[in-house]
Amino acid sequence: MTVPAPTANGERPLIGISMGDPLGIGPEVIVKALADPTLRRRARFIVFGLHDVLEVAADQAEINPFWWREPYDQTARVATGVLVADFDDLQPIAAEEPRGPHALAGHASFRFVEEGIRHLRSGALDALVTAPICKQSWQLANHRYRGHTELLAQRFDARRVNMLFVAGTLRVALASDHLPLFELRNRFTIGLVHQPIDLLDQALREWFGLERPHIGVLGLNPHAGEGGLLGDEEQRIIEPALALARNAGIRVTGPLPPDTAFVPEVCRQFDGLVAMYHDQGLIPIKMSAFHAAVHVTLGLGAIRTSPDHGTGFELAGRGVANPGSMRAAIELAIELATVRQRQRAPVA
Amino acid sequence: MTVPAPTANGERPLIGISMGDPLGIGPEVIVKALADPTLRRRARFIVFGLHDVLEVAADQAEINPFWWREPYDQTARVATGVLVADFDDLQPIAAEEPRGPHALAGHASFRFVEEGIRHLRSGALDALVTAPICKQSWQLANHRYRGHTELLAQRFDARRVNMLFVAGTLRVALASDHLPLFELRNRFTIGLVHQPIDLLDQALREWFGLERPHIGVLGLNPHAGEGGLLGDEEQRIIEPALALARNAGIRVTGPLPPDTAFVPEVCRQFDGLVAMYHDQGLIPIKMSAFHAAVHVTLGLGAIRTSPDHGTGFELAGRGVANPGSMRAAIELAIELATVRQRQRAPVA
Repeated sequence: MTVPAPTANGERPLIGISMGDPLGIGPEVIVKALADPTLRRRARFIVFGLHDVLEVAADQAEINPFWWREPYDQTARVATGVLVADFDDLQPIAAEEPRGPHALAGHASFRFVEEGIRHLRSGALDALVTAPICKQSWQLANHRYRGHTELLAQRFDARRVNMLFVAGTLRVALASDHLPLFELRNRFTIGLVHQPIDLLDQALREWFGLERPHIGVLGLNPHAGEGGLLGDEEQRIIEPALALARNAGIRVTGPLPPDTAFVPEVCRQFDGLVAMYHDQGLIPIKMSAFHAAVHVTLGLGAIRTSPDHGTGFELAGRGVANPGSMRAAIELAIELATVRQRQRAPVA
Repeated sequence: MTVPAPTANGERPLIGISMGDPLGIGPEVIVKALADPTLRRRARFIVFGLHDVLEVAADQAEINPFWWREPYDQTARVATGVLVADFDDLQPIAAEEPRGPHALAGHASFRFVEEGIRHLRSGALDALVTAPICKQSWQLANHRYRGHTELLAQRFDARRVNMLFVAGTLRVALASDHLPLFELRNRFTIGLVHQPIDLLDQALREWFGLERPHIGVLGLNPHAGEGGLLGDEEQRIIEPALALARNAGIRVTGPLPPDTAFVPEVCRQFDGLVAMYHDQGLIPIKMSAFHAAVHVTLGLGAIRTSPDHGTGFELAGRGVANPGSMRAAIELAIELATVRQRQRAPVA
C-alpha cells in the first residue's frame, strides 16, 4: 500500500495501528476502542492487520463494522475514518485454533508491524500504535527479535531507546527495564541514568509541547541512600548523571527518595520522572491507572505508543478484554502527533 | 509511675504514647490527634513525655489542654482520658533551641520510649504508639541503638522482627527494609522471605482477627522473573519459602508480578502482602495514603505502632505538621488491642 505524503499542517493526523497477534486480544481492543465515533473524528486511521479477524472481533462485541478495507499493497488515501490494510495474502489461521503461541500468528503480527514501521519511517504516518505481539510466536516464525522495541530500534537505527509510561498526568521513563533486579548492579552507570533524562526532556519539549520541562530523578536505594548510609549509587552515579544533564541545560531535580516521589503533592511538581528500574516505575503507573496506562518509546525520533498489557491469550475470543489501555494509547498518539505538527509549523 | 494491672476484658484499652523527640513534630501531632474527643473516648491514654513541651504545642495549635499531669514515677490510675506522665526531672531544653539533632533531646526521647516499653512488657499497656525520634540525637546522648525497632527487639528478646505498613485496607510486610538495594543480593535467603510470611500470618489472625488470612507474596524481579527469563530468585528462594509456609498451614499465593500486585482488583484478593524490599512496599503504601500510613512492628508479641514519618525538624514549631499518620497509628493501636482482647477472652 502506498500511503500518501506527510500530513499537511492542520489536517487531522494519520495514525497507524498494527493489529498485533491475531490470536490475542489485540483485534478486539482495537475494534472496541475505535468503535467510539468521537475518537474516530479526531484522526485518520490505518489498521495493519487481517480484515476477517477484525470482523469476528466486531461480531463478538456486537459492534457494526465502521471501517473500509483495501489490500495492504494497494494505493489508498485515508481522507477520513478507518482503513483496514488487509494482509489477505497471509496463510489463514483456523478459527478454532487454541489461543497461544503459533508460528502463523507470529509471522502475521511481524508483517503487520513491519509495514507500520515502514510507513512511520517514511513519514507517511504521524504515529504508530502497536497492539501486543507474542514473543514466542515470533520465535516460532523465525523472526529473531526480542520484541517490538528491538525491531523498532533496529529499523530506525536508534542507538538509544528507553521506555516511557504515561498514566494521566504521571509520566515515568525507565533507566532500565526487563532485567533481573540484581543484574542492574553490573549495568548501573552514569550513562544509563543520563540517557533517559535526556530523551525524556526532548520528548516533553517536542511531543508534549512543554517549553522548559522539570524532570525528577529517583534514587536507587531506600531514602535515596540517606546521604550514603543506605548505599552510594546516588553519590557515585546518579548525582554525576544529574550534573551532566544540568550542564546541558536540562531542568532536573534529584535523587528523590523513591517512596515519596509518587505522592501527589510531590510528583505534581514535575513534568516527568525517571525511575531506575522496572518495578520502581511500573508499580505506581499501574496503581494509578491500570486500564489506561500507555507505553511510549523514547529515542526513535518517531511517535510510537502501545497499551501496557500483553496478548492476553487467556481472555482472547471471549469478548471480555478491556480496551482502556488501547484507547489511551490511540489518544496519546493523536495528542503527541498534534503537538509535534504544531511545533513544526512555520511561525506565521 | 506504676501503671495498673492489665486491662480487664471489656474495659477500654490503655494506649501508651511516647512523645518522641521534643524538638521534632511529635508533641504537636500527638496533641492535634488527641484533641478529637471522639478518639479520646475510644481508649485510655498515657503520654510519656514532657508536660511543658505539650503545652507549648497545644498553645501554638490553639488547642485547650485536655489532659492531666502526673510525675512519671508516681502511681496513677487512668480511668478515662489522657494522662501525661511527665519526666520533669530531665534537664530542660531551651525554647529557642534550633530544631535538629541535640543530646538532651536524644536522652529525653530515649527515656520516654524506655518507660513506655517497660509498661508494654509488663502487660500494663495494651499497645504502644511511638512518635518519631532522631537517631543522631540518640547517638549524641550515647544511646547506641539504630532506632526504635532495634531497642524494642532487644528489650522484648525478639530474634525476628519485620516492618508491617498499614494504609486503609492495604497491609504490606517487608522482607527487608533499610538496606542498600544491591546489598539485598547477599542476604536474599529462604529464611528472609519466609519469616515475614509467618509473622504476618500470626498478626493477621491474632491482632486483625482474621481466621484464615490469605497472604500474597511479591516476586523480586520484573514480571516475577517471567519463568526464569528475568531472574531465578523466584524459583530458587521465593518458591521454597512459599512451600515452607504452605506446609505450616499458611494460605499463601505467589510470587506475584510486583507491578500489578497493588492494582485494586489484585490486592483486594489478599488480606496482606509481603514485599521483598523497602521501596517495593513503601511506594504503594505512601501513594495510597500519604498522611495516613501506619507502621506496625511484627515479632514482638506486643502491639507497637508508629506514624510513617520522621521528626520533621523543618516543620517543627510552626504548627503546620499533619497529624493524619499519628492519628491513624493511635486508631490502629486501639483496633488491634481490642481485637486481641476479644481473642483472649474466654468463650462464654
